[in-house]
Amino acid sequence: MRILGIDPGYAIVGWGIVDFENNRFRTVDFGSIRTKAGTDTVDRLEKIYDGINLIIDKYKPEHLAIEELFFNTNQTTGIVVAEARGIILLAAKQHGLRIGEYTPLQVKQAVVGYGRAEKGQVIQMVTTMLGLPKPPKPDDTADALAIAMCHGHCAFSRIGGYFNK
Amino acid sequence: MRILGIDPGYAIVGWGIVDFENNRFRTVDFGSIRTKAGTDTVDRLEKIYDGINLIIDKYKPEHLAIEELFFNTNQTTGIVVAEARGIILLAAKQHGLRIGEYTPLQVKQAVVGYGRAEKGQVIQMVTTMLGLPKPPKPDDTADALAIAMCHGHCAFSRIGGYFNK
Repeated sequence: MRILGIDPGYAIVGWGIVDFENNRFRTVDFGSIRTKAGTDTVDRLEKIYDGINLIIDKYKPEHLAIEELFFNTNQTTGIVVAEARGIILLAAKQHGLRIGEYTPLQVKQAVVGYGRAEKGQVIQMVTTMLGLPKPPKPDDTADALAIAMCHGHCAFSRIGGYFNK
Repeated sequence: MRILGIDPGYAIVGWGIVDFENNRFRTVDFGSIRTKAGTDTVDRLEKIYDGINLIIDKYKPEHLAIEELFFNTNQTTGIVVAEARGIILLAAKQHGLRIGEYTPLQVKQAVVGYGRAEKGQVIQMVTTMLGLPKPPKPDDTADALAIAMCHGHCAFSRIGGYFNK
């Protein structure tokens, strides 16, 4: 199955496409959608929507794996990130993708085997497991690949995460 | 000018359309989009997107007026409301509407003349100023009309609020 992993954001949306077959991952492509600070919020949201649609149209993933949001200190940033995340979910739904949502803890558990792993460990494991020549940049992209890998494991083992139809 | 006012939500999205000409309001229509508890989050978000598009296609408003979000106690609800709000902004942008965002304080100030007015006062003022036979229900719809009226006043006086292009 082909999975689009997304690290939701507003200034940077990390994305990664992996194929997961016979309990093995193959990297298809990865990158980030960036929106320009100082431009209108709504323009930035539309750019994210258009970018996600382009990625889905090009790579035709069957699944979207996306991180759940939790708000803590920076609530203003949190609101626009949630607005962007809603738009990403909409684009996936409109293309008929199955959707899995995961907490950061689930992602770390699936990729590193330890829910409280450091970010550096996650990035290193993603780089190794996907056989990449160097760590994907920015970190948001590495995170997106980790989320896609988490979905592959969870969908395979039927443990953790969940699917919307 | 024709204004679509929106009280952003997830279970209930209140909406109201008013025309504002010569410093007078005329009610065009109002209502609410409701999404069913217990159904998939993404299905509910898509229903909101489709509902907003239907309203824009039918009434062809030139402006969207929408309330800003602030998170406080119920952060889980806050996240899905922000996701829905992002989708509403996207639909408006895709139709070329100009967008004004207002705080609850600005809305109360514009409609009642007092930023700390009670909800009941806002609803009563909306009902009176729009010449409605009875208060619009649910309250979310009355709020949406209040937000539309706030936008009319602000756009007219160029005080408060702001427009995205």
